[in-house]
Amino acid sequence: MSTEAQVPVESPTEANGRPKPTPELLQKMNAYWRAANYLTVGQIYLKDNPLLEHPLTLADIKPRLLGHWGTTTGLNFIYTHLNRLIVERDLDMIYIIGPGHGGPGIVAHTYLEGSYSESYPAIEQNKDGMKRLFRQFSWPYGIPSHVAPETPGSIHEGGELGYSVLHAYGAAFDNPNLIVACIVGDGEAETGPAATSWHSNKFLNPVRDGAVLPILHLNGYKIANPTVLARIPEEELLDLFRGYGYEPFTLTGNDPMTMHAEMAEVMDTIVDRIHAIQKAARVEGDTERPRWPMLILRTLKGWTGPKEVDGKPVEGTWRAHQVPLDGLAKNPEHVQLLEEWLKSYRHDELFDENGKFRAELADIAPKGRRRMGMNAHANGGLLWQPLKMPRFQDFAVEVPHPGSSLSEATRVLGKFLGEVMKCNLDSNNFRIFGPDETASNRIDDGYVVSGKTWLDKQLPVDVSLSPTGRYMEILSEHMCQGWLEGYLLTGRHGFFSCYEAFIHIIDSMVNQHAKWLKTTREITWRKPIASLNYLLTSHVWRQDHNGFSHQDPGFINHLVTKKSEIVRIYLAPDANCLLSIGDHCLRSRNYINLIIAGKQPAENWLTMEEAIKHCTAGLGKWEWASNDNGGDPDVVMACCGDVPTLETLAAVTNLREDYPDIKIRVVNVVDLMTLEPQSEHPHGIPDEDFNNLFTKNKPVIFAFHGYPMIVHQLTYRRTNHDNIHVRGYKEEGTTTTPFDMCVLNNIDRFQLAYDAIRRIPRFADQKDAAYQRYTEQIQRHKLYVSENGEDLPEVRDWKWTL
Amino acid sequence: MSTEAQVPVESPTEANGRPKPTPELLQKMNAYWRAANYLTVGQIYLKDNPLLEHPLTLADIKPRLLGHWGTTTGLNFIYTHLNRLIVERDLDMIYIIGPGHGGPGIVAHTYLEGSYSESYPAIEQNKDGMKRLFRQFSWPYGIPSHVAPETPGSIHEGGELGYSVLHAYGAAFDNPNLIVACIVGDGEAETGPAATSWHSNKFLNPVRDGAVLPILHLNGYKIANPTVLARIPEEELLDLFRGYGYEPFTLTGNDPMTMHAEMAEVMDTIVDRIHAIQKAARVEGDTERPRWPMLILRTLKGWTGPKEVDGKPVEGTWRAHQVPLDGLAKNPEHVQLLEEWLKSYRHDELFDENGKFRAELADIAPKGRRRMGMNAHANGGLLWQPLKMPRFQDFAVEVPHPGSSLSEATRVLGKFLGEVMKCNLDSNNFRIFGPDETASNRIDDGYVVSGKTWLDKQLPVDVSLSPTGRYMEILSEHMCQGWLEGYLLTGRHGFFSCYEAFIHIIDSMVNQHAKWLKTTREITWRKPIASLNYLLTSHVWRQDHNGFSHQDPGFINHLVTKKSEIVRIYLAPDANCLLSIGDHCLRSRNYINLIIAGKQPAENWLTMEEAIKHCTAGLGKWEWASNDNGGDPDVVMACCGDVPTLETLAAVTNLREDYPDIKIRVVNVVDLMTLEPQSEHPHGIPDEDFNNLFTKNKPVIFAFHGYPMIVHQLTYRRTNHDNIHVRGYKEEGTTTTPFDMCVLNNIDRFQLAYDAIRRIPRFADQKDAAYQRYTEQIQRHKLYVSENGEDLPEVRDWKWTL
Repeated sequence: MSTEAQVPVESPTEANGRPKPTPELLQKMNAYWRAANYLTVGQIYLKDNPLLEHPLTLADIKPRLLGHWGTTTGLNFIYTHLNRLIVERDLDMIYIIGPGHGGPGIVAHTYLEGSYSESYPAIEQNKDGMKRLFRQFSWPYGIPSHVAPETPGSIHEGGELGYSVLHAYGAAFDNPNLIVACIVGDGEAETGPAATSWHSNKFLNPVRDGAVLPILHLNGYKIANPTVLARIPEEELLDLFRGYGYEPFTLTGNDPMTMHAEMAEVMDTIVDRIHAIQKAARVEGDTERPRWPMLILRTLKGWTGPKEVDGKPVEGTWRAHQVPLDGLAKNPEHVQLLEEWLKSYRHDELFDENGKFRAELADIAPKGRRRMGMNAHANGGLLWQPLKMPRFQDFAVEVPHPGSSLSEATRVLGKFLGEVMKCNLDSNNFRIFGPDETASNRIDDGYVVSGKTWLDKQLPVDVSLSPTGRYMEILSEHMCQGWLEGYLLTGRHGFFSCYEAFIHIIDSMVNQHAKWLKTTREITWRKPIASLNYLLTSHVWRQDHNGFSHQDPGFINHLVTKKSEIVRIYLAPDANCLLSIGDHCLRSRNYINLIIAGKQPAENWLTMEEAIKHCTAGLGKWEWASNDNGGDPDVVMACCGDVPTLETLAAVTNLREDYPDIKIRVVNVVDLMTLEPQSEHPHGIPDEDFNNLFTKNKPVIFAFHGYPMIVHQLTYRRTNHDNIHVRGYKEEGTTTTPFDMCVLNNIDRFQLAYDAIRRIPRFADQKDAAYQRYTEQIQRHKLYVSENGEDLPEVRDWKWTL
Repeated sequence: MSTEAQVPVESPTEANGRPKPTPELLQKMNAYWRAANYLTVGQIYLKDNPLLEHPLTLADIKPRLLGHWGTTTGLNFIYTHLNRLIVERDLDMIYIIGPGHGGPGIVAHTYLEGSYSESYPAIEQNKDGMKRLFRQFSWPYGIPSHVAPETPGSIHEGGELGYSVLHAYGAAFDNPNLIVACIVGDGEAETGPAATSWHSNKFLNPVRDGAVLPILHLNGYKIANPTVLARIPEEELLDLFRGYGYEPFTLTGNDPMTMHAEMAEVMDTIVDRIHAIQKAARVEGDTERPRWPMLILRTLKGWTGPKEVDGKPVEGTWRAHQVPLDGLAKNPEHVQLLEEWLKSYRHDELFDENGKFRAELADIAPKGRRRMGMNAHANGGLLWQPLKMPRFQDFAVEVPHPGSSLSEATRVLGKFLGEVMKCNLDSNNFRIFGPDETASNRIDDGYVVSGKTWLDKQLPVDVSLSPTGRYMEILSEHMCQGWLEGYLLTGRHGFFSCYEAFIHIIDSMVNQHAKWLKTTREITWRKPIASLNYLLTSHVWRQDHNGFSHQDPGFINHLVTKKSEIVRIYLAPDANCLLSIGDHCLRSRNYINLIIAGKQPAENWLTMEEAIKHCTAGLGKWEWASNDNGGDPDVVMACCGDVPTLETLAAVTNLREDYPDIKIRVVNVVDLMTLEPQSEHPHGIPDEDFNNLFTKNKPVIFAFHGYPMIVHQLTYRRTNHDNIHVRGYKEEGTTTTPFDMCVLNNIDRFQLAYDAIRRIPRFADQKDAAYQRYTEQIQRHKLYVSENGEDLPEVRDWKWTL
C-alpha cells in the first residue's frame, strides 16, 4: 500500500457526463441488499432450513434469539452503495461501523462478496455453508453478535459507543489513497467522545492523508428512547455539522427503489467532492482547510422488518432494536410472521437451489482486495513494517557514579523519540499523540523534525505548528486514544504521552482495545499489529503544584485486570532505563505497554549498560547500594518507580549511617509483572528467584509508585509475602512541596528507614528510639516547609554518597 | 430555597428604559476587577509586602511559584460583571469555573466580597489578612492552587477538564429561580464530555428548572497550543452553537473600559433573554424548547499581565498559561517587572493603608447569601433534606423457602424506586439517571409516576416522555454522571443505573468526585451531601448476549483505591437484599455507594427479615445451606454476587449429594469491604469474627462476581488467606449461553465442587475421581450447548432442594 498521495482519477461528473446508475443496476443493488437482509434475519433466527425449503417450524428456529435487528438494514443499504462506488471508481475503501451491534449485516455482506468464506472455509457459499453461517451467529462456540475481531473487514467492535469517527480518522491518517466510510448511529452521536470526534477534520491533511466519509445514520431511536439528533429541528442539525466544519448532505426516505436512486446520486456527489478537495490540495496547492462532505441519512429503525407485532408498531420504533419477533415457542403466529418476513426478500431470486448467490448479483461486488472484507487496511498486521530504530544507546546519559548526575528522564526519551520520528519520516508510519501535553511532558524534541499537526489559521506567534506535523495534539484524551487505535489497527506505529491522573479518561477505551487484542491473537488470519504505548508522566509524586485532582496512579490497577498476554507495565527508575524500555516497547507487537517515568530533574543511577541488563531482567538487586555482601540481609529495601527509588536510597543512606552494622539489600523493580507468579504472567520470575532476591523470611520494605495494594495483590502467593510491607500513594495530597507529597503518604525516607528498623528483629530494642528520631524528622520537615514554602535543604540537595 | 418557579421580575429592558451602567459604575467595576487581579498576582508571587510598602525584593517572593495566571483575569472580569447583574436584579446565581486552574482569581473575589473571611476568619480583610491570603496560596498546609472544595462558592474543581457545563445543568435542575453561570475554557471545550454537554439544553425545562448561562471563554491557547474553537472561522463557531441549540452572543476585545461597557450590555441582553424565556414558559405557557442564550467571550490569555518577557511575547499567548515571570532569583530584572506589573493595578486606589478594600468599591458587590461565595446552592449540604422514604419492606418478595421463587431483582428495586419517586414528587429533589438503559435495567416502574425528561418533539408512538419527567436518559454516561454530580452537590438526591462494563467511561469523573468528598469531610463549613449511588446491572455474567465488549466487572477495582471513608460496595445475592441495600444507600450521605445486582429472573434466597439481618451484618453464614452444625466444616463455600451465589449453592447441592458425609459451610458476602481488616476500612470485620466465619485453616472456595484478585487483595492480612481460593471473571467471554460464561471463567458449579474436593485433605484419595467427574460434566455441557444453543436442562431448571 503506497503512502504516496496520488491525484484522484478525475471521475466523470454529472455535468461532464457521469452516467447515473442504470435502472438495471439499481434493481441489482436492491436485490443485493435484499440478500444481505435475508442473511441477517436468517442469522438472528434460523438454525436450519436456510432456504425455507419447507414451511418454517420451531425446529428450524434457534432456542435463544440474540442479535440487533434495528440498525442492520441501514448498514446493509450503505454497504451496498459503497460497493458500487468502489467498483465504479476503483476505490480503496474500508467501512467503520459505529453501531457494531449490527454484526449480522456485515457478516452477511462479507459472505456475499466471498471474503467470509475465504477467511472461514467451512462457511461455504452454498446451502450447507449458509446453514452454518446462520447457526454460528450468537451461538455458543460460534461467532459474537457484534462486528468483532472475527469479522473480516472490521477494525471496530462498536459494542461500546463513541469511537467510530476517531478510528476512522486514525485509519485515514497517512493513507492518502484510502477512503474510510464511517457510520455513526444517532445513539452513538450522543456520547462525549463522538461529539468531539467530529473536530478531527481539523487534523486531516488532504495532501498526505486519506478521506473520511462520515454517515450519520439517524434511525430515530436508541434501545428505549428517541435520539436527540433525530428530533432537533433540521436547521439546527445542519448548523451543527456546518459548525463542525462539514458540508452536510441529507437523504431521508423509506421506499427502497427511490432511496437507491437518491443514495447513488448523493454518494456520487460526495465522492466527487472528496476527489475535488484532494485534487485542489494535491495539484492546485490549495492550503485552506477543506469543508469535507458528510451525509445525514434518515431511514426507519428496523427498515423492511415487521411493521407491527402484537398490535404494536415495530418498524420505525425502538421496539425494532433487538429481536422484533420474540417468544416464538409461545406464539405460533410469530413463526408465521417470521416466515413471511423472510420470504419478503424473495430469496429464491437471490440464491440458487444450492444456496449459491446468483452470479449476476455477486458480480456487482468489488473483487479481490477491493472487497471491504478483504481490504488489508482492516487487517493492519498485513501492512505492518518495523520502525527504523536509531541506537537508543546513543542517547544515554553519562553516569560516572550512581546519582552523580541529574536528568529529566522524559526529555532524554524525547530526544530518542525525535530521532525515531526522523528515521521514519519517509515511511509516513509513526505519530506521537498527546492531549496538549507533549511539551509539558518534555518529549517535544522532535518538533524540529516534524511539527504539530495544524490545518487551521496560524498566527505569527505560533511555533512548531505545521500541516505536515506528526505530533498530534488536542485537549482530549479520547481523541488521542481513538486516533492512535485507528492508526495502529491499520498497521502503523504510535506513542501516547499523558498526565498520569487523566489517563483514566480512556479507561474504557483501553478495555476495548485490550479485548480486541486478546481476541485477535486467536484468529489466524489477523496479523500482529504494533503495541499501544503509553508514557505516563507528570505523575502523582510530582503533582505537588496542581494538587489533589492531578494525583492518581490507578491506571496500573486498571491494566492489571487485563489478560497477562497483553499487558506490560514498566516503571523507569531513571533516564537510561527509560531509554531501554522505550526502545523495547516501540519494537513490540500486540501488547499494551504502560511506561511510567518522571519529567523532573532526577538522579541517574545506572549506566546504559547496567540499565539494559536491569531492564532485561525486569528487576534486580542493586549491588552498589547494598551491603549484604552475598549473605542474608537484615532487611530488603525494595522500590519501584523513580520517586520511591530516590526515597529508598535516601533511607538506605540514613540507615547505614545510623546503624553501621545493618545489612541492607536494595532491590529495584522495573517490570512490575515480574512480581507475579510465572503461572499468572509470562514475565513473572520463578519462585526460587523471587526467594533468592526477596529472601524467604526477612522484612521487605517496599516503596511503590502506585497504590500499595497492587504489590500485595501481585505477590500474595510468594513465600515471603507476609513480610512485605508496602508504602505507596494512599490518596493524600494537595498543592504542596514534592517531598511533602511523600510525607503525606508515608513513603518518605524517614518513614522507610523507621519501617526498616521496626521490622528487623535484632533491632527490637532500638525501635522506640527510631520512632523518636522519625517523629522529630517529620516535625522538622513540617516546620521548615510551612515556614519556607520549600523542602529542607538537606532533602533538596541530598546526594547518594555511599 | 424554594423549588417553586417564580415568574422572573420583569427587568427594565433597553427599549423600555433600562439604565445602562453609569460611567462611574463602570469605573468602579474596573477598579474592582483590578483589585481581584492584584490579589491574584499577589497570591501567585508574594509571601510578604502585600501592599508593596517597600520596594519588592526576593525576600518578599515565594521560593516556588505555583499557579495559573493565563485564565484568571478573564474569570475575574466575568465575576465582576456577574456581581453587577446579581445586585441590579437581585439574582440568585452561582458560578461554575471550568478552568479551575484559575483558583487565585476566585479566592480573590470571595475575599473582596467578604465570603472568604467569613469562612476563614484568620484571613482578615486587612493587611495581615492579605499577607496570609497571599502566603497560603499553593503553600504547604495552605490552600490548593485550583478552585477546590476549600474555595467558598465552588462546586467544581476544574482540574480535570470537561464537566463544567454538566455540573451547571445538574445544579440548575429543579432550582427554577437559580441562574448558573458557567465558564468553559477553550481548552476544556475540546474534550468529549464538554462537546456533548452543550446538548443538556434539550433536558432543561424552563418552567421547573433554573437557567444556565454558558460563557465560552476563548483566550486562544491551552498550555502549549492554540485551541480549535479559537481558530476556526467565526461563522463555523456561530453555526456550531446554533446547531447546539443556543443563541450565541459574542464579545471580543482587550481595552478594559470598552470591554466593561460592552460586557455589561451583552450580559444585560442575555439575562433579559433568560427572563423572557422563563416568562414565556411560566406565564404564557410556551412549550417549545427555547433557544437559550450563551456568550462567546474572546479576551487575551494573561490579559493585563506582562506583554513580553525576555524578548518573547507573553500576554495573548500560551506563555501566559502558568507563571509568566519565573526564575526571579536568577533574573533581578524580573523582580522589577513583577513590581511594575503589580503596581499597574494601582492598588493604593483600591486598598487603604491597612489593606482594607475601599468601601465605595466593596459596596458594589452583592450582600449576604447573594454573594456567589456564600450562595447556599454551592454548599449543597446546607439545603439537603432527607428523602421521604416508603417502607422498603412493603416491596419484599415472598420467599417461603430459599430458592423457591424467582425475581428480577432490579425490577423489584425499580418498584421501590418508583415509590421513592412518588413520595418525593412534591419536593422536586430526586431524579434517576441512566444512559438509555433504565428500562433495559428494569428500574422503569416509576415512569407512570414521572416520565422521562423530553423537551423536543414527541411522536404518537413515543411512550413515557414528558417535559416534567424525572428519569434522565441520554446515551452518555458522562452526561448522566455530570448532571447527577451537579444535582447532588447542590443538595439533592439521585440514583444512577448503568451497564456494568460501561461505567468505566466515567472512571475519571468518579475519581474527582471521590476526591471532592474526601476533602469536604475535612472542611467544617461544608455540610454533607447525599451519596452518589450506582446500580450496576446487565452485569458481566449476563452479557452472554452482547458478548465480550460488554463484560467487565472492574469498576470494583477502581473504587477500592479510593479512601475507605468514602467507598461502599454491595453485591446483592437476591431481590430482598437489593431492597435493603437500596434503602440504606438512599439514606446515606457523603459516600459513593456501588451496588451490583442482576436484572434477569433469579432465585430469591432470603426473606425480607433475613435479608435485613444479612445486609446489616454485611456478610454471614447461611445456616440453611450449611451442614457443619456448629462444628468445623471441611470446606467453606463463600460467594459474593448473585451468579456466584447461585453457582455456589448448586455446587453445594452436588457436593452433598456426591459426598454425603461432607461438612460444608456457606458464607455469603454482601458488603465487600467487610473482608478488609478493620484497620483499613470501617466496615471491615474484626479478625476474630473473620476467623470464626472463614475458619483459621480450612479451605475456602470463594466464588466472586469480579476479578478474583480483589478478594486476595482485601483478605491478604487475614489468618486463613493462604487457604482462600478465588474464582471470578478472568476476561474470558463472548456471545454464548449464561452458564457457559461461568464455565469459560471456571466459576461454574462443577468447577467449584471439584475445587472443594481437591482442597479438602481428607478427600485426597477422591481427587482423581472428582477430576474425572468434573471433566465429564464440562464435556457434557459443551457438547449440549454447541448442539442445542442453550444450557443443559438440569442447569436451566436447577432448584435448591436441600
